[in-house]
Amino acid sequence: MFSDIVKANRSYRRFFEQEAVTRDTLLTLVDYARLVPSGANKQALRYYIACEQPLNGQIFATLGWAGYLKEWQGPVAGERPAAYIVIVQEKGYKMGTSFDAGIAAQTILLGATEIGLGGCMIGNIQHAKLQAVLNLADSFEILLVIALGKPKEKVTIEEIETDGDIKYWRDENQVHHVPKRQLKDIVII
Amino acid sequence: MFSDIVKANRSYRRFFEQEAVTRDTLLTLVDYARLVPSGANKQALRYYIACEQPLNGQIFATLGWAGYLKEWQGPVAGERPAAYIVIVQEKGYKMGTSFDAGIAAQTILLGATEIGLGGCMIGNIQHAKLQAVLNLADSFEILLVIALGKPKEKVTIEEIETDGDIKYWRDENQVHHVPKRQLKDIVII
Repeated sequence: MFSDIVKANRSYRRFFEQEAVTRDTLLTLVDYARLVPSGANKQALRYYIACEQPLNGQIFATLGWAGYLKEWQGPVAGERPAAYIVIVQEKGYKMGTSFDAGIAAQTILLGATEIGLGGCMIGNIQHAKLQAVLNLADSFEILLVIALGKPKEKVTIEEIETDGDIKYWRDENQVHHVPKRQLKDIVII
Repeated sequence: MFSDIVKANRSYRRFFEQEAVTRDTLLTLVDYARLVPSGANKQALRYYIACEQPLNGQIFATLGWAGYLKEWQGPVAGERPAAYIVIVQEKGYKMGTSFDAGIAAQTILLGATEIGLGGCMIGNIQHAKLQAVLNLADSFEILLVIALGKPKEKVTIEEIETDGDIKYWRDENQVHHVPKRQLKDIVII
């Protein structure tokens, strides 16, 4: 059921790093993104895929993790993502690409969830540094990084009251709790 | 299989308008969007749902359809959407909301596809007019409209060569053809 995939698709930030995600798997996921809606069908997005060292480590070094967890510097060695898909766009496209990137990224993560993987969309990126790491031409702009791997953490959803605090948090067992608004608070009557 | 849903999730613009989409169905779809990733978990999106006349017709009158089909003014009466989900955001949120809207809209459409519905994300909106139709407070900004219904048209994907024309087109049988780039042209090596 699609609803099960949506529920299982949490943002994971710790992984069994030794469990490889193959290039073929990444290509399968990008092929899903290839088929999604695109503003005016422009299809300006491009996908840089990585699933090996030392590239994985170089990408990792350009990312910021979980802004609300002030004490946490991101996943330690051994718990880092096994793969990345970096979503970039050809510059010069005027429309639709920010919607497009969300559409594509979510489709990739839902597809990953179905096969037992998980990940996280990361917007906190040192853009110039990652541009250099990937040797990306100036004609490309980085929009989002998707970190992927086999999840090594438990993530649970907490329903919050209207105007409740939306900051996620970790308990003493390192379970990650994510406050989500209730349906009644997001539907306009 | 998730891949089947992704493939079946085309942008549909003609519907069996008399086949109702209930409010409960719309709430189920919005509940999927409630659980998706959100930039910094801010959850700034809100959802206005409509599944009845005269509201449906009033929303329809604010939308532009299929920009590349110059001869086509949009679906005729009887083939118009049976429902709409309008994605709006609370103004004053600084981050993440354009990614968020794509993430949410795609999740809604994939969920609709699973239950035999289809639809189209529409960004060509007369914003002020729709704001008035929905009686939306000034504190909300309209981001995207999702038109929904039981699809009444066939949509096929055509693979295009590198830098091929991305404009969709209709053949003499009113089949809608959508050119999509090939995998090799969207993956950066």
